[in-house]
Amino acid sequence: MPTCPVLRPSGRAVDALRPIVLEPGVSKYAEGSCLARFGDTHVLCTASVDERVPPWLRGQNQGWVTAEYGMLPRSTLTRTDREAARGRQTGRTQEIQRLIGRSLRAVVDLGALGPRQIRIDCDVVQADGGTRTAAVTGSWVALQQAIGVLGDRLEEGAAPLTGQVAAVSAGIWKDQVVLDLDYAEDQHAEADANFVFSADGGIVEIQGTAESSPFSTEAFQTMFAFARRGADALFAAQRTALGR
Amino acid sequence: MPTCPVLRPSGRAVDALRPIVLEPGVSKYAEGSCLARFGDTHVLCTASVDERVPPWLRGQNQGWVTAEYGMLPRSTLTRTDREAARGRQTGRTQEIQRLIGRSLRAVVDLGALGPRQIRIDCDVVQADGGTRTAAVTGSWVALQQAIGVLGDRLEEGAAPLTGQVAAVSAGIWKDQVVLDLDYAEDQHAEADANFVFSADGGIVEIQGTAESSPFSTEAFQTMFAFARRGADALFAAQRTALGR
Amino acid sequence: MPTCPVLRPSGRAVDALRPIVLEPGVSKYAEGSCLARFGDTHVLCTASVDERVPPWLRGQNQGWVTAEYGMLPRSTLTRTDREAARGRQTGRTQEIQRLIGRSLRAVVDLGALGPRQIRIDCDVVQADGGTRTAAVTGSWVALQQAIGVLGDRLEEGAAPLTGQVAAVSAGIWKDQVVLDLDYAEDQHAEADANFVFSADGGIVEIQGTAESSPFSTEAFQTMFAFARRGADALFAAQRTALGR
Amino acid sequence: MPTCPVLRPSGRAVDALRPIVLEPGVSKYAEGSCLARFGDTHVLCTASVDERVPPWLRGQNQGWVTAEYGMLPRSTLTRTDREAARGRQTGRTQEIQRLIGRSLRAVVDLGALGPRQIRIDCDVVQADGGTRTAAVTGSWVALQQAIGVLGDRLEEGAAPLTGQVAAVSAGIWKDQVVLDLDYAEDQHAEADANFVFSADGGIVEIQGTAESSPFSTEAFQTMFAFARRGADALFAAQRTALGR
Amino acid sequence: MPTCPVLRPSGRAVDALRPIVLEPGVSKYAEGSCLARFGDTHVLCTASVDERVPPWLRGQNQGWVTAEYGMLPRSTLTRTDREAARGRQTGRTQEIQRLIGRSLRAVVDLGALGPRQIRIDCDVVQADGGTRTAAVTGSWVALQQAIGVLGDRLEEGAAPLTGQVAAVSAGIWKDQVVLDLDYAEDQHAEADANFVFSADGGIVEIQGTAESSPFSTEAFQTMFAFARRGADALFAAQRTALGR
Amino acid sequence: MPTCPVLRPSGRAVDALRPIVLEPGVSKYAEGSCLARFGDTHVLCTASVDERVPPWLRGQNQGWVTAEYGMLPRSTLTRTDREAARGRQTGRTQEIQRLIGRSLRAVVDLGALGPRQIRIDCDVVQADGGTRTAAVTGSWVALQQAIGVLGDRLEEGAAPLTGQVAAVSAGIWKDQVVLDLDYAEDQHAEADANFVFSADGGIVEIQGTAESSPFSTEAFQTMFAFARRGADALFAAQRTALGR
Repeated sequence: MPTCPVLRPSGRAVDALRPIVLEPGVSKYAEGSCLARFGDTHVLCTASVDERVPPWLRGQNQGWVTAEYGMLPRSTLTRTDREAARGRQTGRTQEIQRLIGRSLRAVVDLGALGPRQIRIDCDVVQADGGTRTAAVTGSWVALQQAIGVLGDRLEEGAAPLTGQVAAVSAGIWKDQVVLDLDYAEDQHAEADANFVFSADGGIVEIQGTAESSPFSTEAFQTMFAFARRGADALFAAQRTALGR
Repeated sequence: MPTCPVLRPSGRAVDALRPIVLEPGVSKYAEGSCLARFGDTHVLCTASVDERVPPWLRGQNQGWVTAEYGMLPRSTLTRTDREAARGRQTGRTQEIQRLIGRSLRAVVDLGALGPRQIRIDCDVVQADGGTRTAAVTGSWVALQQAIGVLGDRLEEGAAPLTGQVAAVSAGIWKDQVVLDLDYAEDQHAEADANFVFSADGGIVEIQGTAESSPFSTEAFQTMFAFARRGADALFAAQRTALGR
Repeated sequence: MPTCPVLRPSGRAVDALRPIVLEPGVSKYAEGSCLARFGDTHVLCTASVDERVPPWLRGQNQGWVTAEYGMLPRSTLTRTDREAARGRQTGRTQEIQRLIGRSLRAVVDLGALGPRQIRIDCDVVQADGGTRTAAVTGSWVALQQAIGVLGDRLEEGAAPLTGQVAAVSAGIWKDQVVLDLDYAEDQHAEADANFVFSADGGIVEIQGTAESSPFSTEAFQTMFAFARRGADALFAAQRTALGR
Repeated sequence: MPTCPVLRPSGRAVDALRPIVLEPGVSKYAEGSCLARFGDTHVLCTASVDERVPPWLRGQNQGWVTAEYGMLPRSTLTRTDREAARGRQTGRTQEIQRLIGRSLRAVVDLGALGPRQIRIDCDVVQADGGTRTAAVTGSWVALQQAIGVLGDRLEEGAAPLTGQVAAVSAGIWKDQVVLDLDYAEDQHAEADANFVFSADGGIVEIQGTAESSPFSTEAFQTMFAFARRGADALFAAQRTALGR
Repeated sequence: MPTCPVLRPSGRAVDALRPIVLEPGVSKYAEGSCLARFGDTHVLCTASVDERVPPWLRGQNQGWVTAEYGMLPRSTLTRTDREAARGRQTGRTQEIQRLIGRSLRAVVDLGALGPRQIRIDCDVVQADGGTRTAAVTGSWVALQQAIGVLGDRLEEGAAPLTGQVAAVSAGIWKDQVVLDLDYAEDQHAEADANFVFSADGGIVEIQGTAESSPFSTEAFQTMFAFARRGADALFAAQRTALGR
Repeated sequence: MPTCPVLRPSGRAVDALRPIVLEPGVSKYAEGSCLARFGDTHVLCTASVDERVPPWLRGQNQGWVTAEYGMLPRSTLTRTDREAARGRQTGRTQEIQRLIGRSLRAVVDLGALGPRQIRIDCDVVQADGGTRTAAVTGSWVALQQAIGVLGDRLEEGAAPLTGQVAAVSAGIWKDQVVLDLDYAEDQHAEADANFVFSADGGIVEIQGTAESSPFSTEAFQTMFAFARRGADALFAAQRTALGR
């Protein structure tokens, strides 16, 4: 690591998150919803309850949580082709939506949820880096609301939500480890990792990637530590959003 | 028409619009943008300038304006499948995006625009009826902004935007002609028509459909008159939004 | 309107239809069929009875009428790509087939039809403008035949067909309102509208579009009047075709 | 072979073709066209000249002939799904259109054709068995016309068409070898073979298939002989159609 | 045929097969499998038993045998695009897999098989000409193994496999008829035919194609005779592979 | 971690790899190839040199390395649908092929490679867990061969390959951390992580996922340590395979 670090474009400290705003209940129709803002990254997350399970789960008396992800064409600096018009979701989209679904399922007791499906939709209204971490973090709020709506439909005593998850990125930018990269940093990062943690200290998902050349174990450990602390701030923001 | 008319679900007069809010400049990146709200129908419209023309226009020294339309999966009362996941845009989507493009091109001098394309994206964040009319009305605001951004890139004296367009629906609901149907009315309408007008009194597009059985010429004339007056209010809202 | 009107390419009066021929029963297999010729526009319409309803109608004890539309690749002046080879129907195709289906359903009592589906296929063998109006007009003949074939399969006293529909176009060509545009006119029309009427004087569908710039209310009223009279001739042709 | 043969549904002799009608010039627009009728099987064949070659042939100073095949949805006894709506051509369709293209190219000097493509479209208007053989036979007529239209566009002395091709089926039905199977026979055939011959006695294509169990070499030789004679009648019909 | 024949690239006699190796049981999981090598052409064939029938066979108390075919992208001299990435199987692929399925079904008693499906997968690991003939020949071995595995699941006395099939190609290369063409020959063949025979002397499938110009009946008869003898060697190799 | 650990199904020590065999040069045609066997997981990796770059890299004087991944339908315990037949690669497939490409690019100097593309194909012939790690490890061998073949085509002194990468999995199975999970373990793992390392001690990629509930930081550190040592054995196997 260099002795004389470069200032981040946003002026943030290396281990500082962007301003985080989680606005729940933004949708007139969805059982749960949250507009998650990580700085200029805005992701609209909704949770829809469907009283049927996917075909492969039928008769097993358990539920499912799944997620879909999309970007509005002009959420990005230059316009991105609309996936519906191209007729195909990109590999990146599929990767992200699989990540969101897995992350949420790690804190859901699918048996307690009962034979129903909760479908999460994460739509990026504006993208300035870190859309998948904002999506996971906001989706948990939407999911919590949707499960709250179930009420009597759950079996007595059932508590499908077993924990709290949040996600944040860390990376190496100009030779320094930084937390919660924005687009200006992400474009030139040497490494990039997304961490999904549970509030009780568990690891839900780690995806770390060298962008140009391999990175060191020490750098990874710092990324991990930054992310761990960043996640704590996100857990607090989730609780605040839900008025707890 | 019955002697004792039924009150509209919203309590509006038969010829009253919903509250109209056109909020321009909502996108950090797009050259033009507008969040159009017709009551609880919210459509995010962006205009993106692309300094290339589609292949079939090459070498003809003129521009193009086109539009795409989409609905967020949970913009609707119950969740609608994501078109990107289905891999195909529905016929309805294609019909609407073709309508938006044609409507805007009717007030654009494509030669004056020069060899570039403006791509409109209309994404429905919340749907309570009349999404296509909100989309056309908001898109015109986004288009106006995007053309304003072109500035010096246009040929001297070129004025690509030749007029103002807005759209509104009228229909027959419980035997009475009503303006600007919301979802509660639209579901049970006997007829439904969308009108696109230009501010100088011209007709840009009329799409009228009998939902269950044919309707009378008189009813159509009343729908036309209601829509004509409604459009005038929309033109005023567009001018207000643009600070004129 | 100019004082010295331009002669139409076909030499027709402004409010004259092309020669109309509706030839019923052209298919060896279909329950109903009609080859509709509007001048050099030839559309083969068939009606197929399917004793099942689409999945979303099951258990509702009513029927459905739907339509599909296609053009043979060399029905056009220059060859058009085959949609089956491209793997996707165009937006135009979907718009037209939705129009045909809606138009026919406006004169069908779906409850009286019973739990079965009639599928209309309109295939353009030769295209010289106005294929969708020929398709609607010919499809009604095919539909009438197919319902006639049902006979005993209908509930006693059921009369699924409640009226007669026909379609015709009108437009503005060289500043004059003209009826039933052919391709030579259509290519250069300033406005184009398709009207679907029922024989009892009702409006089933109106689709009017400004091609280059908005058009006046007066022009629209003339188009409406021409189309209304043209439709009457088509209703007569339909009755003649069916020997009534 | 049984001593007491079963009468064919059509009453034809085992080695008799159905009534053959080849009607050239049926399309207003196509450079070449032919409506080929083999009994109740009606196939509309068009030949379209495209003055460009496919990308993979560029710069090689030779031409190409290719074919596409489709069935109108209600050309069949019961309605067949429209391939354009399904978004995919079946394997059968692809097999047939590849066969038609290969068969025609066997009698075209692609160098003499020059850098242009002739696209054949075969659309089955009515299907009563043997659509592919009618398609090949009629396409040759359309191709001949289209090449005739080229005239001065060909290099001096170039004669792209080097021969005449026609196709016919033979098969085993109720233990007897029969020529030119119709649908009633085809459904219950024990073997089915399609033969494409050139008028100078050459073999262009043979596709023979056992439907339920293997068939004998003797039966195949009889099929071959029947087909050879049937093709001679088709060559004569082609010449008659072209007025030679 | 020329008096002074050209030597084949492989040095083989005109009627000689390549070295044939049929290695059964190569898959850890499949009910039947065979790696078929015809010289440098290597095709991995597996047979998978599925205790369900396709939807269109339900309730008919009979089984089905079907096949799929694919080439690994770098099985070929230069890399071929991966069909899964292109999102579509080519016409050639579909033709081949239909051929394999038909060929095997010709020696299967589908009633005796019972209500289950055997799915054959033929994946070309290395392609040096004749992949479809190797696929048919190897698939029969895999099929035989898979049926052997069924044992008690079959009804008492049921013998679903009624015969033995094998396939081989013959063609015209440099004016001589040759057996079992490799890629070097196939690229320049004047004619190419694939023959599928049953071991009891029956014809299952013949597909003969003129590559550039029609070929003679005599040449075809020689191809047939070569193929007939080649198939006998393949039947022996199949029996050896299965230890009989 | 439990005091009395459960024996692994394979009998391996918790930190033991399966038998590793890397067989280079298995393809007759590919510039580089390797059959990678991690126990019963067999992946065929080929590297194909293409002297063109993808469109978006044109004119930038650098190369590209990309990867595609597929599974033979019966590589798995029960048959998996063929992606080419389904017309779509799954999200899992896309995730894996993106991982392989990124991992290899981390040790390639794309400028030194020059304006050409190396396409890696990883096809799973048999799947017993860990197919992606075998794919990365084998692909590096194929890549090394393919770059070796380039020879004079590279600029003088250019050394595109800057390091060695290998991949291995670790996970939590029955409460113990284990290395290189096979299918029997993978199906019931509580956590699963894939590690890609470079031989000089760098991290290329980490993908860790909690399968049912979050896992601890300590467990992750052990997984990391096991994987690090496992990778050293794979680096040695790669060098052995290449005769170094």
